[in-house]
Amino acid sequence: MVKQIEIVSVGNELLIGKTLNTNAQWLAKRITSLGLSVSRITAIGDNVKEVATTLREVINRKTDFIITTGGLGPTFDDMTLEGIAEAFDSKLQVNEKALKMVKEKYVKYAEEMRHGKFELTPARIKMATIPEGAQPLPNPVGTAPAITIRKNNVTIFALPGVPPEMKAIFENSLSPILKAAAGNLTFFETSLDVSGVMESEMAPLINQVIHDNPYVYIKSHPMGAEKTPRIELHLSTVAGDVEKAKKRVSVALTQLSEMIKAKGGKTKTAKSKKC
Amino acid sequence: MVKQIEIVSVGNELLIGKTLNTNAQWLAKRITSLGLSVSRITAIGDNVKEVATTLREVINRKTDFIITTGGLGPTFDDMTLEGIAEAFDSKLQVNEKALKMVKEKYVKYAEEMRHGKFELTPARIKMATIPEGAQPLPNPVGTAPAITIRKNNVTIFALPGVPPEMKAIFENSLSPILKAAAGNLTFFETSLDVSGVMESEMAPLINQVIHDNPYVYIKSHPMGAEKTPRIELHLSTVAGDVEKAKKRVSVALTQLSEMIKAKGGKTKTAKSKKC
Repeated sequence: MVKQIEIVSVGNELLIGKTLNTNAQWLAKRITSLGLSVSRITAIGDNVKEVATTLREVINRKTDFIITTGGLGPTFDDMTLEGIAEAFDSKLQVNEKALKMVKEKYVKYAEEMRHGKFELTPARIKMATIPEGAQPLPNPVGTAPAITIRKNNVTIFALPGVPPEMKAIFENSLSPILKAAAGNLTFFETSLDVSGVMESEMAPLINQVIHDNPYVYIKSHPMGAEKTPRIELHLSTVAGDVEKAKKRVSVALTQLSEMIKAKGGKTKTAKSKKC
Repeated sequence: MVKQIEIVSVGNELLIGKTLNTNAQWLAKRITSLGLSVSRITAIGDNVKEVATTLREVINRKTDFIITTGGLGPTFDDMTLEGIAEAFDSKLQVNEKALKMVKEKYVKYAEEMRHGKFELTPARIKMATIPEGAQPLPNPVGTAPAITIRKNNVTIFALPGVPPEMKAIFENSLSPILKAAAGNLTFFETSLDVSGVMESEMAPLINQVIHDNPYVYIKSHPMGAEKTPRIELHLSTVAGDVEKAKKRVSVALTQLSEMIKAKGGKTKTAKSKKC
């Protein structure tokens, strides 16, 4: 069974359209390439109740992992950890390991800065105040540690929203865990550029190929307009090994290409990659 | 009361990270600028049960409007309308008005194309097969009509996922309805670029200003690293008229700037706009 992940992006800036959710796309791509499946992406505001409610809903959907981004910083509107604590009926407490991580960063900054003096202010202690039972994960780029906590058969990872910090923690701490959870499963995808056939004419062809290749997922993406048709057909599968995955996609691709040519369309293999 | 909208983006391409959800950001920005509030953005896969379950959850949260994007096209994986029908326990049926819209597009394409001949195939009829009680909305750019349906005090708009089609339908059909629902409410935002003060040092200043200006929302976005600090402070409010909104933000901005300067930081007003 493919392991399921839900992504929860926390931040009002996403809901007012100030920020494009590139974090969720980056995570979805990496997670898929590791052989797991993202089942839902939810963006919510900076609000403790909203974080807690959303996480409870995700837990009820019986996902294997949850990754949150955003809301770990020192300011009042960083509320993700409080929301996680509420969702799990646990308490927030200063974690010694996390506090050491935060302290070391600021001591280092203070040394490097001209008029640097180090103070462990409430705002800085806040970044080390995490739910009971959670473990901090080191942040190689910024100051706020990420955290992980496991309860009710779900593992939550809470990552910062600043993209370079989020990515570094994902690669260092999450990626090995997720890869191990995925086992041998491999995702393989390829795209076919089609021109000269309308999407509405393609529909029965795709249906036929899907019927004959039940393990291959095919999705059509109209790129031009319906009357000057250019369609990207995206074929993908998850299989126990790369060769099996490639073969499955290749069989479906060949069948599809031949059917399109018979309809008078032109095809071009856009890209083929094993992530 | 500010009217609430939830956005539901349908498409596997979002969950595998193939596509960046620019539609949701565009919609969030436009909706906010019209004086309404986006409370959640959910991205889900092309799956009838998933669409139906998600919509039921959104309806239970008592939102005023729901906008879905994606899944209206002619192919097998376009399942949004089936999901809406299931969520509302209604039936899908061929809508004569929608069928006329689809027909007119293909007749026009057939005339314009060299070897064009028009056929009302099952895939094309599918685009006019909409939930009972729904109304089609014209698509000035593509072929699949959008639809709207009102039930249980929620109005749903289902828009296509192709960005130019989604945007055109939003501007033509949705924007006047949403503007009317918002009444006089106006959103106003401005940003302050701060350098020379760490985000963790800013935290208590922001807390103070928020306390003194309860209607202004302030969010800090770290742009540099904590040790070479550059922070964007984003201030926004929703008020009954533009002047009131501007004044509120201006008072908070002045207080905040003075506090930052007293801490040795530099400020620059980044942009100020009434959307």
